[in-house]
Amino acid sequence: MSKPDESKPENVTQPPSAPPPATGDLENQTTETAVGGGGGVANIVRRWKREDLLKRSSMALRCVALIFSLLAFIIMATNKHGDWREFDHYEEYRYVLAIAILSTLYTGFQVFRQFHELSTGREIIPRQYVGRIDFFGDQIVAYLLISAASSAVPLTNRMREGSDNIFTDSSASAISMAFFAFLALALSSIISGYKLSHESYI
Amino acid sequence: MSKPDESKPENVTQPPSAPPPATGDLENQTTETAVGGGGGVANIVRRWKREDLLKRSSMALRCVALIFSLLAFIIMATNKHGDWREFDHYEEYRYVLAIAILSTLYTGFQVFRQFHELSTGREIIPRQYVGRIDFFGDQIVAYLLISAASSAVPLTNRMREGSDNIFTDSSASAISMAFFAFLALALSSIISGYKLSHESYI
Repeated sequence: MSKPDESKPENVTQPPSAPPPATGDLENQTTETAVGGGGGVANIVRRWKREDLLKRSSMALRCVALIFSLLAFIIMATNKHGDWREFDHYEEYRYVLAIAILSTLYTGFQVFRQFHELSTGREIIPRQYVGRIDFFGDQIVAYLLISAASSAVPLTNRMREGSDNIFTDSSASAISMAFFAFLALALSSIISGYKLSHESYI
Repeated sequence: MSKPDESKPENVTQPPSAPPPATGDLENQTTETAVGGGGGVANIVRRWKREDLLKRSSMALRCVALIFSLLAFIIMATNKHGDWREFDHYEEYRYVLAIAILSTLYTGFQVFRQFHELSTGREIIPRQYVGRIDFFGDQIVAYLLISAASSAVPLTNRMREGSDNIFTDSSASAISMAFFAFLALALSSIISGYKLSHESYI
């Protein structure tokens, strides 16, 4: 007796309005021509959700990159312990500092822009440029960060062979922070690339 | 040369009659319901042309990257002039050599794969994986190349302050070759990213 009761709701809940795709179309897209109002709204809602998720994850990644760049900047800038143990005697460390500052400014601006857009709904950069600025900015700053971190590693390694002190430790940690900021921005640039290549259809 | 290649896809996708981007999900598809017979054929032809252009430019960029990686590899591997002027005394130069070999193998394989596909029409890698392998491969090898080149620059600079001889000159030219290979692969990774995010519409 319970069997028909259970099977009935299933039949009812099946989407009755899913019409057969139109035939004779040239491309995949046109096979969905008959999807009516309800399907369209569901699609739009789904797209909104996906865009929201992308926006949130790119904001989170940039926040992470901002924190790590700021840490790299602060640790390297305060790395002055007298005598030969001053970061500004070495061009590699100056490079790390410069790129950490650049990355802090860039990610700081991006995080500020995204929070501003989220809270007020107004755009600082016109919508048609945002995609390209995001993508190329993320990509270029990520390349600069990995370049700066890589250039400073051999010097630090060589110093640590001799003596291991607060100067070499600070340098190593600043380099690590720059590397983590690179990882976050590299992921963010993948998301920006995805958004860029889909933006003209929105 | 790469500039028109990059800008073209954007321009092509601007007109409202361009084929729907088709990301494999249902959305977007309902927006193009009215695309009819003649327009559909024109769209398909236009898409083929764009894909062909993308394929050609990514192949050209990878050929360039292959040539420069091979040069970096050969120049660095033959950089042995006795005494302290041997590349394998320095970890930075060994890193450059290792990444140049890796990059040569990767770009060599990619160029071979693309030529093979073009000439025989048969695929070495299943179509559904190619996009991801292309994109992540290009991206990762580009990061490794910029990292290797950056790490070797300070050492070479410091050596050249003392004396400028055939050893430092060879090192500098190997680093430059690695950097050019990086530029080509960075551009190629942008194209691969574009192809990856559009691939499910094909």
